[in-house]
Amino acid sequence: MKRDEIMLLIKVGGGKSINWEGVCADLAVIIKKEKAVLVHGANALRDEIAAKLSVPTKTVISPSGLTSVYTDRTAIDVFLMAYAGLANKRVVAMLHRYGVNAVGLSGVDGRLWEAKHKKDILVQEGDKVKLLQGNFTGRVEKVNTGLLQILLEANYTPVLCPPAIGFDHEILNTDNDHALAVMAGALRIKCLISLFEAPGFLEDPEDENSLITHIDKGRIEEFLYAARERMKKKVLGAKRAFEAGVEIIHWGDGRLDNPIRAVLEGKGTTIS
Amino acid sequence: MKRDEIMLLIKVGGGKSINWEGVCADLAVIIKKEKAVLVHGANALRDEIAAKLSVPTKTVISPSGLTSVYTDRTAIDVFLMAYAGLANKRVVAMLHRYGVNAVGLSGVDGRLWEAKHKKDILVQEGDKVKLLQGNFTGRVEKVNTGLLQILLEANYTPVLCPPAIGFDHEILNTDNDHALAVMAGALRIKCLISLFEAPGFLEDPEDENSLITHIDKGRIEEFLYAARERMKKKVLGAKRAFEAGVEIIHWGDGRLDNPIRAVLEGKGTTIS
Repeated sequence: MKRDEIMLLIKVGGGKSINWEGVCADLAVIIKKEKAVLVHGANALRDEIAAKLSVPTKTVISPSGLTSVYTDRTAIDVFLMAYAGLANKRVVAMLHRYGVNAVGLSGVDGRLWEAKHKKDILVQEGDKVKLLQGNFTGRVEKVNTGLLQILLEANYTPVLCPPAIGFDHEILNTDNDHALAVMAGALRIKCLISLFEAPGFLEDPEDENSLITHIDKGRIEEFLYAARERMKKKVLGAKRAFEAGVEIIHWGDGRLDNPIRAVLEGKGTTIS
Repeated sequence: MKRDEIMLLIKVGGGKSINWEGVCADLAVIIKKEKAVLVHGANALRDEIAAKLSVPTKTVISPSGLTSVYTDRTAIDVFLMAYAGLANKRVVAMLHRYGVNAVGLSGVDGRLWEAKHKKDILVQEGDKVKLLQGNFTGRVEKVNTGLLQILLEANYTPVLCPPAIGFDHEILNTDNDHALAVMAGALRIKCLISLFEAPGFLEDPEDENSLITHIDKGRIEEFLYAARERMKKKVLGAKRAFEAGVEIIHWGDGRLDNPIRAVLEGKGTTIS
């Protein structure tokens, strides 16, 4: 198999209202024509389990204004339960129901996503900046494309999720959008799809009718300042994906009937 | 790779006092000489999470006297969290720390363990037999050896755990010892190792000094009647493994310093 045969890298966010049946149905059609790798989140499920276990997810803000989750050992355990356990296997089983021969893997398996462990993080608390230790996060720097290749060659559809594994072998929470960009580069992917709980990039995050249908990839950084919270990370991830060789990115609504088909038909935001 | 190159199939029980560091250290030495597939349980972790989530594990007794877990949808969720999520990825990360290129998979992934869904089960309650519905268990009947082969050929060490997937695509709790026997047959494995929280097969389950060091495989069924609870399933599993072509089975103590080495050196119970 030539690397170029891997055509689609699709990320589906971990929101509660994602239409997973639609995602799986669309994917079953797509893989008849081209290879695909699916990456998913599970943040809603993670927060739900964390709440039930009375270890609520701790959110911190970096001095540069990015919101992220502070991940201690307990949070990593909840993360594994939600992402690699519940969400990943539910998606894999559902894909099998649609005839897709899915194999679920976390970034830990075969060192699929290798990251540098960031043990201490700086957090903004009011007008003070504090150092938080005992953190288990890291940014993906290396992707085991070989493992993905052998699965794709054998006609399996990889279904991937965080956590990543550190160069120090620790299990690490990681930014999915960054991992996606690094993986797209490593797999020489040209087209990237990201589905979440909004129609695409909204000029006004509160107004679903303010969809921006096209963004010039050269102007992506301007949108970084307009973006809020989670969207900021998607914009940063998109910027990195273009730097890594991606040519077109589709952002679309994971809540629609046929979410992948819709985004490929131009519903959503296209960045190119 | 010839199938015969896969030499060892090792199962490690899900008890609390298993010496996982020792298991990983031993496996790192073994895989320098021969291929291995690891299967693990996580029942202690499962019960712990179930208790924390206030959905305690429900145990039932079959009319034939076998103890098993009644698995409704909630129990399957807890099962996924404990086995495919927490336990599997912890073991995989630990193996990487010992230099073993481990890939963790559940029976759901790539339909690795396919089972027939047993929706209704008969349970013994006092002197009455009741029918319990909405059950998500099944016995493994089919193994995707192809997926294991491509991983082993590429020098990955598969780390497997339940649940299985039903022919009806449902996620199913399954008897690990039965799955092990079916897998041993499908992979043409000659030597099987099973580690748990006892020195081996004990004549008196309450007395750790009553170890039976050798059992004639032709007499295995006699031991079925002597065995209690979980041990009953191991004896049944061993019987099936021999029917499937296995030649030697080692049962040993997973709590020792070097649990795999110890069992291969003859500490424990050898059935041949």
